[in-house]
Amino acid sequence: MKLKVIVPVVLQRKDFKEEILKGYKSISRSDVEMDIVSLDQGPESIESKYDEALSQPGVLEKIQEAEKQSFDACLIDCFGDPALYAAREVVHIPVVGAGQSGMFLAAMIGRRFSVITVLDRIIPLIEDNAQVYGVSSKLASVRSVDIPVLDLKKDRDLLIQRLIKQAELAIKEDGADVIVLGCTGMAGLAGAVKEGLYKKELKVPVIDPVKAAVKFAESLVDLGLSQSWRYANP
Amino acid sequence: MKLKVIVPVVLQRKDFKEEILKGYKSISRSDVEMDIVSLDQGPESIESKYDEALSQPGVLEKIQEAEKQSFDACLIDCFGDPALYAAREVVHIPVVGAGQSGMFLAAMIGRRFSVITVLDRIIPLIEDNAQVYGVSSKLASVRSVDIPVLDLKKDRDLLIQRLIKQAELAIKEDGADVIVLGCTGMAGLAGAVKEGLYKKELKVPVIDPVKAAVKFAESLVDLGLSQSWRYANP
Amino acid sequence: MKLKVIVPVVLQRKDFKEEILKGYKSISRSDVEMDIVSLDQGPESIESKYDEALSQPGVLEKIQEAEKQSFDACLIDCFGDPALYAAREVVHIPVVGAGQSGMFLAAMIGRRFSVITVLDRIIPLIEDNAQVYGVSSKLASVRSVDIPVLDLKKDRDLLIQRLIKQAELAIKEDGADVIVLGCTGMAGLAGAVKEGLYKKELKVPVIDPVKAAVKFAESLVDLGLSQSWRYANP
Amino acid sequence: MKLKVIVPVVLQRKDFKEEILKGYKSISRSDVEMDIVSLDQGPESIESKYDEALSQPGVLEKIQEAEKQSFDACLIDCFGDPALYAAREVVHIPVVGAGQSGMFLAAMIGRRFSVITVLDRIIPLIEDNAQVYGVSSKLASVRSVDIPVLDLKKDRDLLIQRLIKQAELAIKEDGADVIVLGCTGMAGLAGAVKEGLYKKELKVPVIDPVKAAVKFAESLVDLGLSQSWRYANP
Amino acid sequence: MKLKVIVPVVLQRKDFKEEILKGYKSISRSDVEMDIVSLDQGPESIESKYDEALSQPGVLEKIQEAEKQSFDACLIDCFGDPALYAAREVVHIPVVGAGQSGMFLAAMIGRRFSVITVLDRIIPLIEDNAQVYGVSSKLASVRSVDIPVLDLKKDRDLLIQRLIKQAELAIKEDGADVIVLGCTGMAGLAGAVKEGLYKKELKVPVIDPVKAAVKFAESLVDLGLSQSWRYANP
Amino acid sequence: MKLKVIVPVVLQRKDFKEEILKGYKSISRSDVEMDIVSLDQGPESIESKYDEALSQPGVLEKIQEAEKQSFDACLIDCFGDPALYAAREVVHIPVVGAGQSGMFLAAMIGRRFSVITVLDRIIPLIEDNAQVYGVSSKLASVRSVDIPVLDLKKDRDLLIQRLIKQAELAIKEDGADVIVLGCTGMAGLAGAVKEGLYKKELKVPVIDPVKAAVKFAESLVDLGLSQSWRYANP
Repeated sequence: MKLKVIVPVVLQRKDFKEEILKGYKSISRSDVEMDIVSLDQGPESIESKYDEALSQPGVLEKIQEAEKQSFDACLIDCFGDPALYAAREVVHIPVVGAGQSGMFLAAMIGRRFSVITVLDRIIPLIEDNAQVYGVSSKLASVRSVDIPVLDLKKDRDLLIQRLIKQAELAIKEDGADVIVLGCTGMAGLAGAVKEGLYKKELKVPVIDPVKAAVKFAESLVDLGLSQSWRYANP
Repeated sequence: MKLKVIVPVVLQRKDFKEEILKGYKSISRSDVEMDIVSLDQGPESIESKYDEALSQPGVLEKIQEAEKQSFDACLIDCFGDPALYAAREVVHIPVVGAGQSGMFLAAMIGRRFSVITVLDRIIPLIEDNAQVYGVSSKLASVRSVDIPVLDLKKDRDLLIQRLIKQAELAIKEDGADVIVLGCTGMAGLAGAVKEGLYKKELKVPVIDPVKAAVKFAESLVDLGLSQSWRYANP
Repeated sequence: MKLKVIVPVVLQRKDFKEEILKGYKSISRSDVEMDIVSLDQGPESIESKYDEALSQPGVLEKIQEAEKQSFDACLIDCFGDPALYAAREVVHIPVVGAGQSGMFLAAMIGRRFSVITVLDRIIPLIEDNAQVYGVSSKLASVRSVDIPVLDLKKDRDLLIQRLIKQAELAIKEDGADVIVLGCTGMAGLAGAVKEGLYKKELKVPVIDPVKAAVKFAESLVDLGLSQSWRYANP
Repeated sequence: MKLKVIVPVVLQRKDFKEEILKGYKSISRSDVEMDIVSLDQGPESIESKYDEALSQPGVLEKIQEAEKQSFDACLIDCFGDPALYAAREVVHIPVVGAGQSGMFLAAMIGRRFSVITVLDRIIPLIEDNAQVYGVSSKLASVRSVDIPVLDLKKDRDLLIQRLIKQAELAIKEDGADVIVLGCTGMAGLAGAVKEGLYKKELKVPVIDPVKAAVKFAESLVDLGLSQSWRYANP
Repeated sequence: MKLKVIVPVVLQRKDFKEEILKGYKSISRSDVEMDIVSLDQGPESIESKYDEALSQPGVLEKIQEAEKQSFDACLIDCFGDPALYAAREVVHIPVVGAGQSGMFLAAMIGRRFSVITVLDRIIPLIEDNAQVYGVSSKLASVRSVDIPVLDLKKDRDLLIQRLIKQAELAIKEDGADVIVLGCTGMAGLAGAVKEGLYKKELKVPVIDPVKAAVKFAESLVDLGLSQSWRYANP
Repeated sequence: MKLKVIVPVVLQRKDFKEEILKGYKSISRSDVEMDIVSLDQGPESIESKYDEALSQPGVLEKIQEAEKQSFDACLIDCFGDPALYAAREVVHIPVVGAGQSGMFLAAMIGRRFSVITVLDRIIPLIEDNAQVYGVSSKLASVRSVDIPVLDLKKDRDLLIQRLIKQAELAIKEDGADVIVLGCTGMAGLAGAVKEGLYKKELKVPVIDPVKAAVKFAESLVDLGLSQSWRYANP
């Protein structure tokens, strides 16, 4: 099967694309072929509904293109899932988002999950998505590490430390029993966060939304299923 | 006070803009100055989440422009409220939408309202907006007249007849006691629909969302209030 | 247009009526004529469901009288909105309440609002009203300054200080991004509370419910709308 | 134990009081002493929020009186539960209402209940009470037989026939599996309605709210429990 | 009337059965005959969904037996209500559970209740039951004293002290105004907990779920009512 | 990876087990090894909460056994998911159920799903599971074909015809845009049902819950994830 990753921002450096793709390839099954594309025009990062709005036309264009190129499914590489529902109205191939995939997986393996994201100002987007997706009764809280997307790679240790701290608060104060990393830029850190929590006797799963999205896409293609076409835009 | 109307589509004919503006002027108070702008690029109508996504960057650009031009408030002329929440993150002046204004007004004067819109395929957008706005417990149903936006002016009698029919079903089958016209292209028809319902002994208010939005904008400016800046994008 | 303010208590001193009316006149548009009436019989203040129950027959009498006197709308001057829904069953002119108006306005310009009221024992009335109105999903919390209604004027500085303190807690602990003053006796203080919050970098709107109610009444009369007559008491 | 029944209306004929009391005595345990009182001033029947508002001061007066007379509990004889929560703020003895008692009992023995009441215009009161009580998720529907309270005794056969008809619709169309009679004036008819339903193979319990209220009052007195005094009006 | 108590565990010592029965007899009315039975096979205590699952076949067997023995109602002696809904599908006599009875009684006499139970790991069972019963909107929180069921009798003072502590936190932090003891092994302690709370000026009722269940069973038998047979397993 | 299928009933004929296993093997990836076990003691089919309760101890025993045998995950082969949450408290390997998997997958690819199951009397189990899982806001309805589990294979054409009929009603009357087959005994029919719906221009996905469960199990094992151990029974 062939999956296309849509990076819904304009990448600052060309090698980022290769790096992201490499991450995806390390997750996907051996029989999955993956390709990646980023936007020609749009925001450099998505940290608000404003950024998300600006990214949507580009995302839609790339997804429609992917369908024409005979990809089996598309994956939007951002926890905010920009244009996820809009895209599903216009293509027949499955479109999955990291946010929806991560939140539903969390809802399935625990009682209440918390999302730890980058900045407070993206909280409204995540909370509203949870509500529209129908999982807000399972959402304990959305917390942030207070580090912008473009700074996530600057100090990996600080990031992990803050993720563990916020996850701990989410478990103890908000009643979470599953943690979801709330930014695709945090890919690869779920293991370290889980380890940190287990050291504190907090035995909860930590979900990397990128991985959840890949598995969701693979599953849909395996099953020959796609989004409902009931309200589609013919 | 100076209000700017944002028509979130590319208008097919230049005189449409004047016509829409005229409608707004007939509603607003005598001390309100109104101006109007439509998109340079974007969809010709908004009948799905796909259309809405394509209109958002243009809407945001025009709203930011309006703030620079010292307008006191902006009004998005579409029941789908494209970019309403995104815009509120980046400007200080009040931004109001026909959909939010119409649905809240309905929630205030009745127990459960129904929205009668153009096509079934825009129902998801309206339902999801109601949920994010926090009024879905008051939303009895969203129904459609099955006429595309660009055909709304073709046969005014047929449109009114179908609006009355769907409103009647909304009241009798869905439990609505207030009706909201679900497209700004239906502006001016609330009176005829109400009359039709009263003839059937169905004594319910019919709300024109355009009018609701103008009053909401006037009220905010009068009160010196604007959207919360708590999660703003500084 | 002519608006009638119903003060739903027996006023202790005659000059209070003039003072309240003066406040209303300072808010309303120049083309609005305002009159005021208080109860002949009933409680001296409304700080519980018990007080509210005692005030309702008097409120209903005064509202029915106002309709006969050809007022265009009635405004109940109490955050508890005594007899609001009951009155709407028996008169055709719009009846608005400070509580409903303030809470809906808050719901429209923010994500979650908190109400800061006088005493803890009126919390059940406000919470239950929010639920019946359909805005409880937007209500972050109801907090109190622990000062009875009749003492609100004794120490204005203390009152403002406590309002700011409780608003701060509502924002930081309960997740509010809009504050509503929860008693019409707090009219005129929204500006001072907002200023206090901005000094603490808490950029949220503060709503005076009296002002919200005046604008809601003006808007309804402007639009020729009134409450639904579907379940009216003919 | 001594229970006081509060009839929250002005009775048209003196013998009605005796008749109602007789009904209560036939339900209560042999060790329960019952007394009854009706209002000196107020509505003749309760069929709307307007009627309910007018009855509340009288109900409160009679309940406070009952506490002084050392009754062990009070029972409000109306499905609308006028002044139930207000009364609980000012007396220590348990105050129970037919509506709350009937609806909770229904919620305990089934999945979803429907209330069959007198007129459509009292539906808002019942629905809003269910919401405030916290049982609206269990309320399938409120339906009416379209007969005013004061006509309930005119044609008992017609009343039973309509109750069975509406109960059948509630079960088949609204998903109810328990029926609650929605007016204390329907006391004594639960058996006939249940029989009618069983003949149609609809095996659901039918609850007489008056009986539910008596049992709830007896239980509270037996247990030495009363309403929470947390938000009481001291 | 004859009530059968089902102890849904294998009792460690024979005299426990007599002790439990004695407790029940002290609560029930003088005209009620009570009998008791415990499981032949199953868990020794119920502190998780796992324990609950293991107890269910035995509970069902004993309830079906009780119906054959002409008991008028059955009472499951565990706050987790094992097999409550399953049993109601197969017998006609009323089946009541301590959990459902205690939680509904709390919902009727207050605004929001908290349950104080034995261990954190039984919280999911209680929360999920509350949701299925339809009272989760009234559930402020479930807290635990961190003492296993089989240790509850070891140090009665410590248990009472912890119950008061957790109840206090539930009132002050979670907004509860009624407390429910969350284990039938805490029977007899409601008075001491209430006293402890009143000393702290926290005037809230404390419910012993065993007592609530007995009164619920007596009421159903008095009224000739039982669970709905709509979805029964014929 | 090695997956163990738990058939939570006592199979009437030995060859059924081989048949079910064959079905699973046809769905799973080529690198997945599958084994199957059925109960030694328990019900012959699960069509109510009563049946489900009887099956739980056997299911728990088989799942604990599977963990000891080093299986990587367990899959409960019944839409009612007997003992799903109980099992998750006692084993570390992922435990998945057909019901939870099917309902969540439906919630992810559509707006509202309906479940078409065997008999009306299993509706409470499915509805309550949906509520506990947190997807009830996405559940449009549960409908039945009125054919017992053990008769499902008797007349395959009739079954398909009724599935299509109920699915059509679910879409048109209940607002579903995804259909879930509500019994694992309907495995293999999703294609035929979808085809039937497409012929009626009803373009909605039809989910086979068995397939959804296999993909969910594979995904969890791939990701090294399992249920939260926060409330586990150590």
